Amino acid sequence: MTQGSTGLGVGMVGHAFMGAAHSQAWRTAGRFFDLPLSPDMAVLCGRDAATAQAAADRLGWRHVVTDWKELLTRDDVALVDVCAPGDVHAEIAVAALDAGKHVLCEKPLANTVDEARAMVAAAERARANGVRSMVGFNYRRVPAVALARQLVADGRIGEIRHVRGTYLQDWIVDPEFPLVWRLQADRAGSGALGDIGAHVVDLAQFVTGDRLTGVSALTETFVRERPLPEASRGLAASGGPGRGRVDVDDAALFLGRFSRGALASFEATRFATGRKNALRLEVNGSLGSLAFDFEAMNELSFFDGTEDARTAGFRRILVTEADHPWAAAWWPPGHGLGYEHTFVHEIVDLVRDLGAGTDPVPSFADGLQVQLVLDAVLRSAAAGSQWKEIEE
Amino acid sequence: MTQGSTGLGVGMVGHAFMGAAHSQAWRTAGRFFDLPLSPDMAVLCGRDAATAQAAADRLGWRHVVTDWKELLTRDDVALVDVCAPGDVHAEIAVAALDAGKHVLCEKPLANTVDEARAMVAAAERARANGVRSMVGFNYRRVPAVALARQLVADGRIGEIRHVRGTYLQDWIVDPEFPLVWRLQADRAGSGALGDIGAHVVDLAQFVTGDRLTGVSALTETFVRERPLPEASRGLAASGGPGRGRVDVDDAALFLGRFSRGALASFEATRFATGRKNALRLEVNGSLGSLAFDFEAMNELSFFDGTEDARTAGFRRILVTEADHPWAAAWWPPGHGLGYEHTFVHEIVDLVRDLGAGTDPVPSFADGLQVQLVLDAVLRSAAAGSQWKEIEE
Amino acid sequence: MTQGSTGLGVGMVGHAFMGAAHSQAWRTAGRFFDLPLSPDMAVLCGRDAATAQAAADRLGWRHVVTDWKELLTRDDVALVDVCAPGDVHAEIAVAALDAGKHVLCEKPLANTVDEARAMVAAAERARANGVRSMVGFNYRRVPAVALARQLVADGRIGEIRHVRGTYLQDWIVDPEFPLVWRLQADRAGSGALGDIGAHVVDLAQFVTGDRLTGVSALTETFVRERPLPEASRGLAASGGPGRGRVDVDDAALFLGRFSRGALASFEATRFATGRKNALRLEVNGSLGSLAFDFEAMNELSFFDGTEDARTAGFRRILVTEADHPWAAAWWPPGHGLGYEHTFVHEIVDLVRDLGAGTDPVPSFADGLQVQLVLDAVLRSAAAGSQWKEIEE
Amino acid sequence: MTQGSTGLGVGMVGHAFMGAAHSQAWRTAGRFFDLPLSPDMAVLCGRDAATAQAAADRLGWRHVVTDWKELLTRDDVALVDVCAPGDVHAEIAVAALDAGKHVLCEKPLANTVDEARAMVAAAERARANGVRSMVGFNYRRVPAVALARQLVADGRIGEIRHVRGTYLQDWIVDPEFPLVWRLQADRAGSGALGDIGAHVVDLAQFVTGDRLTGVSALTETFVRERPLPEASRGLAASGGPGRGRVDVDDAALFLGRFSRGALASFEATRFATGRKNALRLEVNGSLGSLAFDFEAMNELSFFDGTEDARTAGFRRILVTEADHPWAAAWWPPGHGLGYEHTFVHEIVDLVRDLGAGTDPVPSFADGLQVQLVLDAVLRSAAAGSQWKEIEE
Repeated sequence: MTQGSTGLGVGMVGHAFMGAAHSQAWRTAGRFFDLPLSPDMAVLCGRDAATAQAAADRLGWRHVVTDWKELLTRDDVALVDVCAPGDVHAEIAVAALDAGKHVLCEKPLANTVDEARAMVAAAERARANGVRSMVGFNYRRVPAVALARQLVADGRIGEIRHVRGTYLQDWIVDPEFPLVWRLQADRAGSGALGDIGAHVVDLAQFVTGDRLTGVSALTETFVRERPLPEASRGLAASGGPGRGRVDVDDAALFLGRFSRGALASFEATRFATGRKNALRLEVNGSLGSLAFDFEAMNELSFFDGTEDARTAGFRRILVTEADHPWAAAWWPPGHGLGYEHTFVHEIVDLVRDLGAGTDPVPSFADGLQVQLVLDAVLRSAAAGSQWKEIEE
Repeated sequence: MTQGSTGLGVGMVGHAFMGAAHSQAWRTAGRFFDLPLSPDMAVLCGRDAATAQAAADRLGWRHVVTDWKELLTRDDVALVDVCAPGDVHAEIAVAALDAGKHVLCEKPLANTVDEARAMVAAAERARANGVRSMVGFNYRRVPAVALARQLVADGRIGEIRHVRGTYLQDWIVDPEFPLVWRLQADRAGSGALGDIGAHVVDLAQFVTGDRLTGVSALTETFVRERPLPEASRGLAASGGPGRGRVDVDDAALFLGRFSRGALASFEATRFATGRKNALRLEVNGSLGSLAFDFEAMNELSFFDGTEDARTAGFRRILVTEADHPWAAAWWPPGHGLGYEHTFVHEIVDLVRDLGAGTDPVPSFADGLQVQLVLDAVLRSAAAGSQWKEIEE
Repeated sequence: MTQGSTGLGVGMVGHAFMGAAHSQAWRTAGRFFDLPLSPDMAVLCGRDAATAQAAADRLGWRHVVTDWKELLTRDDVALVDVCAPGDVHAEIAVAALDAGKHVLCEKPLANTVDEARAMVAAAERARANGVRSMVGFNYRRVPAVALARQLVADGRIGEIRHVRGTYLQDWIVDPEFPLVWRLQADRAGSGALGDIGAHVVDLAQFVTGDRLTGVSALTETFVRERPLPEASRGLAASGGPGRGRVDVDDAALFLGRFSRGALASFEATRFATGRKNALRLEVNGSLGSLAFDFEAMNELSFFDGTEDARTAGFRRILVTEADHPWAAAWWPPGHGLGYEHTFVHEIVDLVRDLGAGTDPVPSFADGLQVQLVLDAVLRSAAAGSQWKEIEE
Repeated sequence: MTQGSTGLGVGMVGHAFMGAAHSQAWRTAGRFFDLPLSPDMAVLCGRDAATAQAAADRLGWRHVVTDWKELLTRDDVALVDVCAPGDVHAEIAVAALDAGKHVLCEKPLANTVDEARAMVAAAERARANGVRSMVGFNYRRVPAVALARQLVADGRIGEIRHVRGTYLQDWIVDPEFPLVWRLQADRAGSGALGDIGAHVVDLAQFVTGDRLTGVSALTETFVRERPLPEASRGLAASGGPGRGRVDVDDAALFLGRFSRGALASFEATRFATGRKNALRLEVNGSLGSLAFDFEAMNELSFFDGTEDARTAGFRRILVTEADHPWAAAWWPPGHGLGYEHTFVHEIVDLVRDLGAGTDPVPSFADGLQVQLVLDAVLRSAAAGSQWKEIEE
C-alpha cells in the first residue's frame, strides 16, 4: 500500500478463473505502480458460504458475503468488481452503480443488448455523481497490444486496408468434454462468440481506433450434445439421461467493414486443435503492418513499409523496453510478462482514473458497442449470412 | 533426356512470368526424375516475332511462331502449354485439344464459367482419343502441401472442422503502381480473386479432399484509378489523361462451408503490406492440425492431438526428407527447394501420366469447379454478402 | 496465508532488482499453491534507513533494519533471503546459518571459490540441525526448463552428444553506459561470466543431469573505461576525472566436456546487440533434441528422433498445460507466465522442503560447483585457453 | 545460350552430389542471367565408364572420359570443374591450371595445407597467363548471405564484437550408418570439420570481411567403429569383419578471435539430431546484428540498433526483392529460391569474371586460408585446446 494514500475498498463477486486473476491484480498493482488510492481487498461474494470462505482465504480477501446486495451498503466497499457469469452482470452492475459504487465488470458486458443498454444508462447516471465504470477487456493491456495501438495512432501504418482477427482455442474438441456453463445459452449468452469473439472484436477496434459498421456471418455447433458435468447433473432440464443439449455456438466466423474503409475477417472457435489461446490480430495499412499473437504475448510484429525494400521485414519487437507501455514498472528488457499482468495494468489504469476523476476505458458504452457487433453477427448468421449493419 | 525414351514435343504460348517458370521446368524435369517421354522444347509462340525470338533464345526454345494456330498442325508439337493471359485460354485450349494435342493450361482455367465449361467439354471429347489435359495449380506440387494432403488422407487430423486460407501480397499498395493487365477485367477476368484466390481455393480443396458448397463474400477495390503503364498509354479507353479505371477487385474475402461440414474463411489481397507471397493454409481437425505458409515453403506445421499433452506441440517439419513427395530426387535433408520446383514436379507428374495413359490432375473439371467457387464469390459480393450455393 | 498453517518469518537483505522479484514471490506463492508454512514478509534490511523504508512500503515488508546482523536474533525471522551483491553473500549466509536461520541466497553463490567453500561448510553444519539452504538459480523453475529436465531424465533424447548454451544481453553496448557495480570486480566478482554465465552453466547441468569436467575459455573486455555513475563519482579509485576502469569481463566464451561424454559450448555476453535476455540452451542426444530460449519462456522445442522421418520436426510445446511443472496452479493452457513466476516456483519448492524437512535444490554445494566451473573458465582464459579440469 | 556469345567448354570431374548440383548450375545460369560466355557442358569424367555414361545422360553432358588427364588436352574444354573427393583436388587442379584450363574446385580446397599451398602457387602461375581459378564455397551465393555481407560493409552493424557460427547436421547419429568415404581420413581429410566446418569458417570471414587469427579447439569421434558400406566391404583395411574404424572427427568446436577484435565460436557436427542443414551465423556489432540459418535460406534477420528502442526488433527480411543480390533475375518477391541456386550464382559470377578478365572469388588463396584455420583447429585440439595462431 502506498504510504499516505487513501484506501479503495473493493468487493468482488465471483471467485473462479476471473476472480483469481482479479485478486492477483488487486494485490499486485500497488507494489509495482504508484497509485493514488490503495486497493483494499475487503469483501468476497460467493453463493456458497464455505466455498467462498475457502476462496477468500486462498485469494486474500478479508470478509465474505453470500448475497451481492450486501456489498452495496457496506462502507468498506467503494468499488464492486463483477467476476460472475454474464447472466448476472446487468443486475449487479446497475444496482451497484445506482448505489454509488464504482463498477469494474468482466466482459462480455451482458448477455443481451437490452441488458447492456440498461448498464450504459446506469453508468451515465452514475457518472454525473462521479461514480465510474469500466468493462474488463483485459487484452487491451497487453503491452504489445497497447504499442500496436500507439503505432496506428502515430500513423506508422497509414490508412488501414485489412484487419484479420482470430481467437482460437481447442478445449472442447473432445465430444466427451462436459456441458459446463460456458456451453449453456442461459448462463453464457453465446458460445465462442461472446466468450472470446468479444475479445477479438474489442481488440481490433481498439488497435485500429475505428469501429465496425456491418458484418456477414456464419456460426456452427459441431457437437450438439454433451455429458452433463458431475456437479449439476440433477439440474438438467433437457437432453437424455446424463446428457444435455449444447445451445451455443462452437465457432463463429464473420466478415466486416470498418467505418474508414478497412475490410475485416474474424473467427472465434474452441475447435482449433493445437491452438491454445491464439488471440491474433493482423492489421495491414498503406504504410505498414502489425501482427500480434497472444501465445507469444511479449512480442509485436511490425513491418515498416517506408523502409528501403532491401532491409524491410517484419520486426519481432520484444515489448519489454522501458519505453513500452507499463514495462518500466516491471523487469529489465527481455524479461517477459504473463497473462495476469494484463489485469494488473487494468487495475492500475482504473485506480488512476478513480484518483484523477477521469473516465476509465473501455467504458460500458464500449462494451455495448461490442455487444451490438455480436448481435449483428448472430442476426446475419440467422439470415443466410446476409449483410447486417451494426446498430449505433 | 532419358536415353532411349520417346520425345514429347512441346509448344508453349506466352513467355512472360509463367513462360519462364514453365521453360525451366521442361528443361529440368528429366534431369532429376525418370520420365517415360523426353520433353523437347520445340516451339515458342509470342505475338511479336522479335520479342518472341529473344525469349526463345533466352529460355531455350528451338523454334518461334507468332500465331498459336500454327502449333496445332506441327508434327514436332504433341503438347500445347498455355501460359498466356486468361482471356485466350479457352480458345487456344479447345482448339488444341480438338486438334489432338495434349494441353497444360495455366490457372485460372478461364475468365468465365462459360469458357471453362467449354474447355471441360473439349477435354472430355479429347480424352476419348487419349488426349490429356491439366490445369496448372502448381502449388499442389509444393512437397509440404502434398505431405499435408497425405496426412489428411491418412486420417492424421481426423474430421475437419476449420479451414483458413489466405493469399496475401502487397505489390499494388502504392496507388501510383500502373494499371497493368492483371488489373483489367477484360484481360484478367478478375483481380486478386482469380489470380491468387483461385490458388488458395484449389489448395484448400486439394488438401482437405473436400469441396466447398457455398460462400458469403465481400470484395473491394481500394484504388480505383491508376496511371496507365508506359507501353499502353495510347490505348486508354477511359479515365483522365494518362490514367485508367481499375475494374477488378483489389481484395476478396469470403466465408464458406465444405461438404463434410467444415467451416472456412478465405482472403485474397494485393494490399497486405509486407506480405510478399503469403499463400497460407491452416486446417484444424478433430485429431490434429496442419499449417502452411508459402513464404517458408519447405516447412509444414503439424499438430498431433493424439499425443500426450505434455509433449504435444506444432512441429516444424522440414519437408526435405527422402520419404517426402518428390524430395528424394533432389538434395539431402535440409537443402530446400524453391518456387520453380513446383513447376518441375507438375511437369514430372504430367509427363508420367502421358506415358502411362492416365489422367493428370488437377483436371479441367477441377479448374471449372474452382471457377464456380469464384463465380459464387462474385455473386455473393454483389448481393450483400448473401449466401450463395456453388453450382455443380 | 493458508488457514491454520504455521508462519515462516522472512528477513530479506537487499531491495533492488532481486529484492523486488523475491518480494513478489513471497507475496504470491501461497495464493496459488498450497504451502505447509505461510510466508510472512517480516523484515527488510537495507543500508540506508530512508531508502529501505520506502522500499519496504512499496514491496510490502512490515519492518526495516539497516544492519543485517539484527535479522539473526529476531524471533520473527526464520529465514534470511540474501539479495545483496555477491561480495557480502558469504558473510551474511554463514552467519545466518550458524544462527539457525534458513538461507535462500541469490546466485552466484559467492565471488570466490574460497567463500563458496565456507558457505557449503556452514550449510553442512546447519543441516545437522535441520536448518536448510538454497541458492537462487531461478531459471530452473521456468516450466519449460523443468519439462526439458524431465524429458532428459525420461530418456526421451537418449545419450547426450551436444550442449549449446548462451546467455546474451546487450545493455552495455553503449560505451557511455556508466560503470555500475556489476562492472566492478570488487563488488560483482566477475562480469558477464558470474552474472549470467553462472545461470547458463547451472541450467545446462540441471537439464542434462550431468556435470562439466573441464573447459577451455576466452574472455574479453571490449570497453575498458566507462563514465562513473552519478551517485558514486566521488569514490573513483582509478581512471581519469569522472571515468573508471572496467575490471570485469564483458564477454566469456568456453568449450567444455561433460562427465558422460557430451561436448559443450557456452557464451555469456552483454554485447549481443538486440538480444535482450537470450538465455538459450540446446541439447542434442542420440534419440532427440531440446531447445529453449528465455525470450520465449513459455515454449520448449523438442525433436523426437524416434518418430517417422516423414512427420518428425521440432515441436513448439506451449508449456502451459495442466501436466506441465507448476502450470496447473495458474491459468488455462496458452495463458503464459512471466519472469517473476520463476521466483514464485522457487519459493514454493523451498517452503515445501522446509515443511517436509527435506533438502532444497539447488544446494549451496550446487552453487559451489558452478563457482568451480567459473573458476576453471578464468584460469583457462588466463592460460592461453589451455584446458583446465574442474576441481571437485 | 546467349545469342552471339562465345562458348565456354566445361569438363567436370565427378558426378555424385556435387556433380549433380554443378550440372544444374551450368545448365541454368545462362537462362536467367546475361553471360559473356555460353557454358557448354562438354565432357564428364568418371572412373567407371558405364556409370559415368549413365550420369552424363542424366545430367546432360555430351562426352564421357574416364581419365581426367584427357580433359587437359581437349579443345572443347576451357574450364575444369573439380567435383571429386578432396584427396584428388590438388593433383587435378594443379595439372589443369598448368595446362591453361580455368579451374573451379569444390571445397575444401585440399586435404592438407601443403596441397593447398601447391594449388595457390599453381593459381598464381596460371593467373599470369589469364587463367582463372575459384574455390566453391557456394553458400556465399545465398542472397541472404550476400546481403549480410553488404550490410556489414555498409557499416550497418558497426564494429563487430561477436561471431557465432554453427553447421549442424544429423545424418550419422545412427551408429549403424555405414563407413562412407566422408568418414575416412585418407579420402576426406577430416570429418565434420573439413566438410561443413570449412563452410561456416568461410561464411563467417566473408560476411565480416575479417579473418580469424587464432583458435582454441575440441574435437570428438562419438562412434568409433561403423559397418563398412556394401560396395567397399572387401577393401576394409582395419576393424573387425565387416566393420571399419572411423578416423575423422564427428564434431569439432572452436573458439576464435578475429583480427579486428571480435570473439567467435564455431561448431561443426553431424550429431545434432533434428538439425538437417543448420548452417547458422550470427554477428553482433556495436550498431546492430545479423542472423542467418540455411534451413530458412530465403530469410535474413537484421537488428538495427540505431532505431528507437520502442520499435526496434529483429527483422525477418525475405531476401527475394529486386534489390537483393541475384534476385531480380528470378521470380517476384516472396517466391523463394532453393539450394541449387547458390551454384547457379557461383557459375554466373565465375563466367562473368572470365568474360571480364577479372579474378573470381573466393580464390584459391581464400581456400588455403580456410585450410589454415582448420589446421590450427586440429593442432589446438591435439594440444589440450591450447591457443594456436593461424599461419599466414
